[in-house]
Amino acid sequence: MIAKTPKDSLTTLTDIVLPGETNPLNNLFGGELLARMDRAASIAARRHSRRVCVTASVNHVAFNKAVPLGSVVTVEAKVSRAFKSSMEIYLDVWIEDRESGVKTKANEAIYTFVAVDETGNPVEVPELVPETEEEKTRFDAALRRKQLSLVLAGKLNPHDATELKALFN
Amino acid sequence: MIAKTPKDSLTTLTDIVLPGETNPLNNLFGGELLARMDRAASIAARRHSRRVCVTASVNHVAFNKAVPLGSVVTVEAKVSRAFKSSMEIYLDVWIEDRESGVKTKANEAIYTFVAVDETGNPVEVPELVPETEEEKTRFDAALRRKQLSLVLAGKLNPHDATELKALFN
Amino acid sequence: MIAKTPKDSLTTLTDIVLPGETNPLNNLFGGELLARMDRAASIAARRHSRRVCVTASVNHVAFNKAVPLGSVVTVEAKVSRAFKSSMEIYLDVWIEDRESGVKTKANEAIYTFVAVDETGNPVEVPELVPETEEEKTRFDAALRRKQLSLVLAGKLNPHDATELKALFN
Amino acid sequence: MIAKTPKDSLTTLTDIVLPGETNPLNNLFGGELLARMDRAASIAARRHSRRVCVTASVNHVAFNKAVPLGSVVTVEAKVSRAFKSSMEIYLDVWIEDRESGVKTKANEAIYTFVAVDETGNPVEVPELVPETEEEKTRFDAALRRKQLSLVLAGKLNPHDATELKALFN
Amino acid sequence: MIAKTPKDSLTTLTDIVLPGETNPLNNLFGGELLARMDRAASIAARRHSRRVCVTASVNHVAFNKAVPLGSVVTVEAKVSRAFKSSMEIYLDVWIEDRESGVKTKANEAIYTFVAVDETGNPVEVPELVPETEEEKTRFDAALRRKQLSLVLAGKLNPHDATELKALFN
Amino acid sequence: MIAKTPKDSLTTLTDIVLPGETNPLNNLFGGELLARMDRAASIAARRHSRRVCVTASVNHVAFNKAVPLGSVVTVEAKVSRAFKSSMEIYLDVWIEDRESGVKTKANEAIYTFVAVDETGNPVEVPELVPETEEEKTRFDAALRRKQLSLVLAGKLNPHDATELKALFN
Repeated sequence: MIAKTPKDSLTTLTDIVLPGETNPLNNLFGGELLARMDRAASIAARRHSRRVCVTASVNHVAFNKAVPLGSVVTVEAKVSRAFKSSMEIYLDVWIEDRESGVKTKANEAIYTFVAVDETGNPVEVPELVPETEEEKTRFDAALRRKQLSLVLAGKLNPHDATELKALFN
Repeated sequence: MIAKTPKDSLTTLTDIVLPGETNPLNNLFGGELLARMDRAASIAARRHSRRVCVTASVNHVAFNKAVPLGSVVTVEAKVSRAFKSSMEIYLDVWIEDRESGVKTKANEAIYTFVAVDETGNPVEVPELVPETEEEKTRFDAALRRKQLSLVLAGKLNPHDATELKALFN
Repeated sequence: MIAKTPKDSLTTLTDIVLPGETNPLNNLFGGELLARMDRAASIAARRHSRRVCVTASVNHVAFNKAVPLGSVVTVEAKVSRAFKSSMEIYLDVWIEDRESGVKTKANEAIYTFVAVDETGNPVEVPELVPETEEEKTRFDAALRRKQLSLVLAGKLNPHDATELKALFN
Repeated sequence: MIAKTPKDSLTTLTDIVLPGETNPLNNLFGGELLARMDRAASIAARRHSRRVCVTASVNHVAFNKAVPLGSVVTVEAKVSRAFKSSMEIYLDVWIEDRESGVKTKANEAIYTFVAVDETGNPVEVPELVPETEEEKTRFDAALRRKQLSLVLAGKLNPHDATELKALFN
Repeated sequence: MIAKTPKDSLTTLTDIVLPGETNPLNNLFGGELLARMDRAASIAARRHSRRVCVTASVNHVAFNKAVPLGSVVTVEAKVSRAFKSSMEIYLDVWIEDRESGVKTKANEAIYTFVAVDETGNPVEVPELVPETEEEKTRFDAALRRKQLSLVLAGKLNPHDATELKALFN
Repeated sequence: MIAKTPKDSLTTLTDIVLPGETNPLNNLFGGELLARMDRAASIAARRHSRRVCVTASVNHVAFNKAVPLGSVVTVEAKVSRAFKSSMEIYLDVWIEDRESGVKTKANEAIYTFVAVDETGNPVEVPELVPETEEEKTRFDAALRRKQLSLVLAGKLNPHDATELKALFN
């Protein structure tokens, strides 16, 4: 399998916020944003693996900024690290000022997908080779996040989580 | 007002086709695709004009290829010509083969939007300067389409539709 | 196959505009109206042909009037001309004043559908015989629109578009 | 206030059944049909009263026939009797065979709406004068249904429910 | 088949009212509430019968209180009486004051479901044994409601509707 | 402010999986489940705080089991720990076998909400006192998760994350 770069899986979903997608405060309803990110992330995972991919976990989503009704929202999803059959997808969410056109970061999220075959069994995916500085930083952090989630799930002894442990020394 | 290029308004909406968006033949329901294109086109119009924009007309949409359930669909919208307060938006719709990743053109559409102020009155928009060959071709054809729609609406005498008339000589 | 009249395919879809179907200006979202018209037009095409029908193109939709939240909207669809396996559907959209009950025309649209068999191949449809004056006018214009769309698609030499050419002489 | 006939409030909502509106048996989901009938009934009530109308009760809905995916469904709503400020709306639901075009009755339903002013207080509505035999039968039965619902709610002494009591003598 | 109690089928659906689910008065749209109740009732019927269940009728729904945008709404559904293959489901709808947390009854509804096998034929369901006082009252009233609906449908002679007739003596 | 227990905020959302909510594999679409959990969690946060609450982050969601079309899904949300103005909400998702009625755990998720006043500023929330063993375990782990998320966000020096650090010693 030929290694791929994050650029190969870059998925852009630009859309507006309509009244039917808001919460009672007239901002984009959190659940709707989670759903849009899930759609974008599943496409990025598919573009990296050329396989059917299913959501394995949502590791982290930070809602830093409310997204008001009528906003233009851009969800960008890219594979940040590939493991054996799983892929970490890093999402950046931008909103765009209508008058100035300036984009500001509204949210970040990390989803994990697993590539499966027709019977639902995990299959191998290509390696990921990060290119930019940001991609490399996210690539490195992805390993710590994986160790962490294994530790928290009780599937990895904390002392074997080398990358993670280094943080505390 | 500073002229803009089609690239400045390029809007990309990549999304998947879920079961709740299909017709009884398990293809993307035509109405759902029309709605997605309307959303993408309204963003392109806003990016060109930095104004509130409302749909004025859908000039032409050709459904050349059915889009099956589970497909990855990319709607790309760009302003193809700006008039006084209206903008023609050209949309290209692509579907992507899951295994090979090859994209094929599924549909094309042309929408017209008008920029308005807070009271709903039309306001002027920047000029559009096409750059690529395809953008220039679409820019020229946009004038013929505008004349045509005026002729068909009885608002322009066929003999004054110079660009259009040339086609028949 | 027995010829049919426009009345045979008349389809009426009267519905209200709920908050989940509006745009940020609190008017019916353009994409939602396009979807409702697509649903009504597909029923008219089916009633004329008694076949599965798929959207071939949206030839023209003019959004002349905004449709505010809470309006009663009536979409009326009728076949305006039948060709070999395709049908032109003409749609009229009305809104109704709540207090006076007066209906005003909000939009018009023209969609084209193709009748297909189980394998998706086009099949013949009955002839259409217009009855009222308006139906006859639309029937005649439908031929010019078809020629026009063939000319614009490069599938018909402008000089062979006899009906259309007559407009410019 | 001028009396009205059922014809004055007749509301027709013809639409298709898409996959996103079905239950796991691939028939129209009951809740979706209840919602469509509520929309049609609210329009009929508004057409009779020219007022804002709110659902007061759903008296009876019989689901006699499943409505399969892809069906053409017609909901017809008409006021069947007007009381002081409330209106009984009678709904007939038809499905249409695609090949023969034959319509069969799928369901019937009875909803009650109340006309209100801006502050939500009930306001008087015009009298209803039934015309056809069926309209007269439904008009008479509406009184029995109203008495019955008052008896069941404990707001009317069974012995004062004259019309209803007659049924049991 | 072992008899069951109402508690065995108790189904709780607590959810909020989002803008996309309101009517033009900013209250929960009647059709949306009817749909939520249908979903909850179908689960209660399934829990009682362990079978596929289809909506047979909506006997009665009283909309006593508007449910404003942003409310927390709880739909509670329990089987109130089982007949041969049909079940009456009693629904209570509560809204919750955000500040005090006090719950008030907003609506009541009665739905009937039928349990079916794979070919859609009715199958027997377990008996229901009411426990609380309220459950016993509803259990008794369910028989009168069943007789009533048979009388109104012309399927039962009023003089044979013993339970119901007693009301008028 | 009086301390509360997890039971005080327990929110139960039982619902079925309809075709319009599935992914192309006919299982509940991940984004739809994320949205349902967001709705349930926001109600639990509101019940604990009696305030408007907004999603601050989704800390962790594990999709361990696919949820097939037609399933009965129960989302249970309870506050697991309260901080100054934020609350950690722990969600358990269960699916129910139609024939046996046996419930199995399908997913777990952890969301964080912040209580805000009318101007969107954070306000204090009551303390949480866990009661059961499971509630106590989740209460303790919540602190480690909070430290972790601060460490990962670069807002807490790993050496000050005492609870978390203990894991690696």
